[in-house]
Amino acid sequence: MQMPGEVTITEVCPRDGFQSLPNSIDSIDKIKIINDIIDCGYKQIEVTSFVHPKAIPQLRDAEEVVTQISRKNNVKLRALVPNLRGLERAINAGVDKVKLMLSATDSHSLSNANCKTVEAMDGFVPLVERAEDSQVAVSGSISVAFGCPYEGLVPVDRLLMICEKYLELGINDLSLADTTGMGNPFQVQKVIGALRREFPEMRFSMHLHNTRGMAFANAVAGLEVGVTDFDSSVAGLGGCPYAPNASGNIASEDLIHGFEEMGIKTGIDLDKVISVARSLEQQHKPYTNSFLLKAGKNSDLHIKPKGQEKLG
Amino acid sequence: MQMPGEVTITEVCPRDGFQSLPNSIDSIDKIKIINDIIDCGYKQIEVTSFVHPKAIPQLRDAEEVVTQISRKNNVKLRALVPNLRGLERAINAGVDKVKLMLSATDSHSLSNANCKTVEAMDGFVPLVERAEDSQVAVSGSISVAFGCPYEGLVPVDRLLMICEKYLELGINDLSLADTTGMGNPFQVQKVIGALRREFPEMRFSMHLHNTRGMAFANAVAGLEVGVTDFDSSVAGLGGCPYAPNASGNIASEDLIHGFEEMGIKTGIDLDKVISVARSLEQQHKPYTNSFLLKAGKNSDLHIKPKGQEKLG
Repeated sequence: MQMPGEVTITEVCPRDGFQSLPNSIDSIDKIKIINDIIDCGYKQIEVTSFVHPKAIPQLRDAEEVVTQISRKNNVKLRALVPNLRGLERAINAGVDKVKLMLSATDSHSLSNANCKTVEAMDGFVPLVERAEDSQVAVSGSISVAFGCPYEGLVPVDRLLMICEKYLELGINDLSLADTTGMGNPFQVQKVIGALRREFPEMRFSMHLHNTRGMAFANAVAGLEVGVTDFDSSVAGLGGCPYAPNASGNIASEDLIHGFEEMGIKTGIDLDKVISVARSLEQQHKPYTNSFLLKAGKNSDLHIKPKGQEKLG
Repeated sequence: MQMPGEVTITEVCPRDGFQSLPNSIDSIDKIKIINDIIDCGYKQIEVTSFVHPKAIPQLRDAEEVVTQISRKNNVKLRALVPNLRGLERAINAGVDKVKLMLSATDSHSLSNANCKTVEAMDGFVPLVERAEDSQVAVSGSISVAFGCPYEGLVPVDRLLMICEKYLELGINDLSLADTTGMGNPFQVQKVIGALRREFPEMRFSMHLHNTRGMAFANAVAGLEVGVTDFDSSVAGLGGCPYAPNASGNIASEDLIHGFEEMGIKTGIDLDKVISVARSLEQQHKPYTNSFLLKAGKNSDLHIKPKGQEKLG
């Protein structure tokens, strides 16, 4: 098993987690949580989405959050932008990077963005042009890349086509999202292997959901084909709209713990992440999904039962 | 990724699951559940443990269960036996195979069996001799092989030593148990790779717990180093005594679904397993842990939202 020495984990709870909660978190509480997340040692945080407040009211305070958190120079802030209006807001708020989002399949794209995949891509052209005039970097993403809840398996050719179009737009930083947790490790290796062979200039990251229990296995499969950038959400906050009670994003503490156990450095303070996770669990218990909060770290050893000295 | 075309999954819910419940299941209900499990297409089922009824009262009806279920010729019944008395009971009840159990570390062995690992192994000698006079096959197991809740990491040399002693006893069918879910995929490949290189005559199987979310990744790591035999428990029934609310055994439906999605045949009817799991969930909800029961199979596609035809 070929493993990298270190990986970069982007914390997405402030976007994917907060937007999945039925009620909005107060801005002041969000700012505290994000400050705590920054303090954990992440190099990149997906802080919010500059969508229309009617679409996702839970993130209507995007500007307030981005401008009031305690930023650090070495911590990049990434935000989702769905359109030019969102991009302008993101630029004004001062994020480092924006992420564009489209779906691998037409049916998911129509359901999410009211247009087909290629139409969504065409809509990115003015955004990329506007971003070039700013200091803001642009990254892309492909939702339901490893399976669509409406269409099932996504053909590799379709992902190759989308990836090529992203490169034509000048975007070489691409997140492959297993939005509803349908991917498996064999598929991950096959798909990402093909994409990396075809487009060596593209930097691929993975956004994994643990809907069917395969998220960590998919992360390891990604490692094995050279992926070193992963998204995760502290406390596993972030659901699956197609299965309301199912697990959502892989929990940051579970991913970090697993990687560190494998000898892969994340640069993130696991104990601090667990502390943030525990506080989120206290506030939002039914929506969190974390193995480590229940089981503890491997290194949390138990005291040997009394009497062993005698017996031993 | 080198993958086998098929694997063998042993259902352990009737032993590992039932013994973990605070209350005993009625024998008549156990028999019905096991008959339903047999009907799923498993080739091997761990039906019970012939322990002293005071040690595990939930399994005190071992004889009744083994003799009253509707057996099929091609479905092997395996049972745990802790001692000669248990072996006699298992032989009389008519199981096909018994499994001996010891711990990788002395502290876990002392805690579970009141003796050190090597002493436990010495105690196996009369059992193996007795079994040779019967029609019953003997297999072995190593608990906490990938991590001990008292000692942490288990050195590979220790596993090599135990494995060698098992072979000296004439046992070449060995289950490596990640009893408290501390293993990681890199370790699995390293450890099992070393064991297989050193002892090619030994057939290794894996018994995985999902305590820290890595069970499926560990199964895939096992596949990659040639393991094709796995234990799992329908509905994920079976806990972790060191973390009462944590996940226990990997759920059979999750393992089968994941393998089948990877193109690996299990020979088991997933829909029937899900049906057994759902019925167990209804009876024992707080103790089940199953992704598939919440999220459904990948192939359970959702209906495309209305209006797509118009938009498309």
